[in-house]
Amino acid sequence: MTKIKVIAFDADDTLWVNETFFRNAEKEFAKLLSGYETENKIHQELYKKHIDNLAIYGYGIKGFVLSMIETAVELSNYKINQKIIERILEIGKEMLEEPIDLLDGVVEILQELQGKYKIIVATKGDLLDQERKLEKSGILQYFHHTEVMSDKKIADYLKLIKRLEIHPSELLMIGNSLKSDVLPLLEIGASAIHVPFHTTWIHEQVSNQQKNDSYKTVSKITDILPLL
Amino acid sequence: MTKIKVIAFDADDTLWVNETFFRNAEKEFAKLLSGYETENKIHQELYKKHIDNLAIYGYGIKGFVLSMIETAVELSNYKINQKIIERILEIGKEMLEEPIDLLDGVVEILQELQGKYKIIVATKGDLLDQERKLEKSGILQYFHHTEVMSDKKIADYLKLIKRLEIHPSELLMIGNSLKSDVLPLLEIGASAIHVPFHTTWIHEQVSNQQKNDSYKTVSKITDILPLL
Repeated sequence: MTKIKVIAFDADDTLWVNETFFRNAEKEFAKLLSGYETENKIHQELYKKHIDNLAIYGYGIKGFVLSMIETAVELSNYKINQKIIERILEIGKEMLEEPIDLLDGVVEILQELQGKYKIIVATKGDLLDQERKLEKSGILQYFHHTEVMSDKKIADYLKLIKRLEIHPSELLMIGNSLKSDVLPLLEIGASAIHVPFHTTWIHEQVSNQQKNDSYKTVSKITDILPLL
Repeated sequence: MTKIKVIAFDADDTLWVNETFFRNAEKEFAKLLSGYETENKIHQELYKKHIDNLAIYGYGIKGFVLSMIETAVELSNYKINQKIIERILEIGKEMLEEPIDLLDGVVEILQELQGKYKIIVATKGDLLDQERKLEKSGILQYFHHTEVMSDKKIADYLKLIKRLEIHPSELLMIGNSLKSDVLPLLEIGASAIHVPFHTTWIHEQVSNQQKNDSYKTVSKITDILPLL
């Protein structure tokens, strides 16, 4: 990897814990609606609504909250208690205000890489939310800037390359999602290292057929150092 | 303006109509809640909620919809008809799917400037929403890329300058909001031209004292050409 100029880190579940907050919100949502449906059905309907709405709302907490409200109104057949709507709005605000829980080795690896590469954050989600998390994280100073992407498909990475004014081979992406942080990079001739998080959102899971041998998986983020 | 390298266009109400859709949504919202409060009170409470929530939700339609739902639940004292919650969600989706109504002269000015400057979009709002609007607008090809900013204050423009790797004096911003598109640019030593839209959101209005002589106001976007 001698040509690498820019190292891009995914943020959620690569630099800090995120998926856990969504899973906790879903659990509370299922409890709030437990008078109307089984827990299993509530989870299924919320997941379906969230995915159906991704095209219009995009990734991030605000769209997730809107999907929770829509699911609550529909699943309850317009009978949901208004206090529950209010609580769903609060859950969203609590998620947006969660303290940052940096993953092990993150500060260490950033200290090692600083000055040697242009280091950026490349993440999906709400722009303001991601900027705020980076500011709260205490690691803002390591990054040249943040790229908040509306999605992480091939076309989105091509746009990123254009904005960075580099050749794809000069980009290394590091992230927890094979689907979003690894496979599209390999398709465009960039490099990628996979650092799995213990929980993967079902929407981000890929089948074995989609996997590919031309990337490395490491079990902790500091293990990328010997690969550079 | 001989040093200008990058020309940044604001998007909403500079390239295309936007504020009108928010005003129409507010009118419908006031009608939906007319059984609970006066129209005036409903407008006031929604405005207050929207502004209070800006710090946590940021700009854009999704945060506005969440604020409408919160206002509806509170103003009705938890008695709002669930069908109204559903309608508010629909209003948000309709806003996100509005067709693009380009303002007069936009295509003409972009054709004149292309090849002579790096032309970008610098806008607040939801990332996905702004990207989608640009794709639907038919003018995507004129822009090097889009910068979606979480706010448009001095610090945000300093970040933009850093990302673009230019000197402030090499940036010209063109937009309809004195507060967001003009005054902070002058503070950092960049240039700005003000192209007012007929409607200005009250949050974007500035007092006469805040105005400044070192920018030009033009009545239509093509009038910027002789100033370059």
